[in-house]
Amino acid sequence: MELFTYYRSTSSFRVRIALALKGLDYQALPINLIAPQGGEHQQPAYLRINPQGRVPALRTDEGELLIQSPAIIEYLEERYPQVPLLSRDLAKRAHERAVAALIGCDIHPLHNVSVLNQLRQLGHDEPQVVHWIGHWITQGLAAVEHLIGDDGYCFGSAPGLADVYLIPQLYAAERFNISLEAYPRIRRVAALAVQHPAFVKAHPANQPDTPK
Amino acid sequence: MELFTYYRSTSSFRVRIALALKGLDYQALPINLIAPQGGEHQQPAYLRINPQGRVPALRTDEGELLIQSPAIIEYLEERYPQVPLLSRDLAKRAHERAVAALIGCDIHPLHNVSVLNQLRQLGHDEPQVVHWIGHWITQGLAAVEHLIGDDGYCFGSAPGLADVYLIPQLYAAERFNISLEAYPRIRRVAALAVQHPAFVKAHPANQPDTPK
Repeated sequence: MELFTYYRSTSSFRVRIALALKGLDYQALPINLIAPQGGEHQQPAYLRINPQGRVPALRTDEGELLIQSPAIIEYLEERYPQVPLLSRDLAKRAHERAVAALIGCDIHPLHNVSVLNQLRQLGHDEPQVVHWIGHWITQGLAAVEHLIGDDGYCFGSAPGLADVYLIPQLYAAERFNISLEAYPRIRRVAALAVQHPAFVKAHPANQPDTPK
Repeated sequence: MELFTYYRSTSSFRVRIALALKGLDYQALPINLIAPQGGEHQQPAYLRINPQGRVPALRTDEGELLIQSPAIIEYLEERYPQVPLLSRDLAKRAHERAVAALIGCDIHPLHNVSVLNQLRQLGHDEPQVVHWIGHWITQGLAAVEHLIGDDGYCFGSAPGLADVYLIPQLYAAERFNISLEAYPRIRRVAALAVQHPAFVKAHPANQPDTPK
């Protein structure tokens, strides 16, 4: 498999965790979103891969090009069911997917770089942009704190889909200096993930395109 | 099943379509988001159902409370596989889920009422808010137009997951007076759905809480 990825992209990070948890090998094809000559994601070569011009995209072993991290992760779960990211019980799966959707729909899209640029175009200065980011992350994490379990990862002793979404969201929270003080369950999950080899391997600090 | 729903909510509309396509009966429990005494979704009674204070929520036949429309719809697909919303082929499923995720993550969250209220709090007037909405919907629908097929519904002759997301998004586009002129494939899907009994049944115009 080939993964079109950017080291710091939240949704690329998600897919890298899913691949690493499942022990799947892939070739990383870095797409530089902030190349000086213009982001590579907006160049014709990449728009042929993903007409939306976003990372990640996955080329499967069968040569299919897949986009959108939620769809890619569900594909990996179905195609490589070893090391499952979802429980077998249908209601539990729904609870796990709810946390993933809450992060993937109600938190991350609101501080995506395209949204922040739109706010800047509307005349907002950096303190206002940072306030905006903090509003959505803290509101969302408060809901996640309510939904996840009392020990282990988000839902039990092994990492799963909710953790695949939560850990990259916490990386973003850290970048924007958002305190996790009010979220003891989330901090517990973060402390576990930081020591887990799959999360370490997938981390933005450890990618081929990570700046030295 | 019981569905906590609001007639005009995009994500409630999605779940209602999925239920109707699968021919599943349910009791609608309307939650008035704009009740004069304050939105019912923010009252303690509903926050016990969904701590995030959003619609929809589904109480399953087994009494489990599920939140987040993407998680609810995947649950319905797994629990009631009759009238499948996803293809059997894994790559096709990923393409169908990609359109759903594009709409559910990259379009709808950016014009959710909570985001628009945040923009108003930042001092933006209605023309600016409407411009913001239009920016995200047109950019997103242009990508959807690229990804869906050349005849029938989004992917083939029967409606599926991508249509479950697209039709409510078009309802929102219509509310905000966004032209679909540039999207002939999307218009073709819309013309089919408007005549399909499941989409008619699920439509905001036909709910128990629709204003007379």
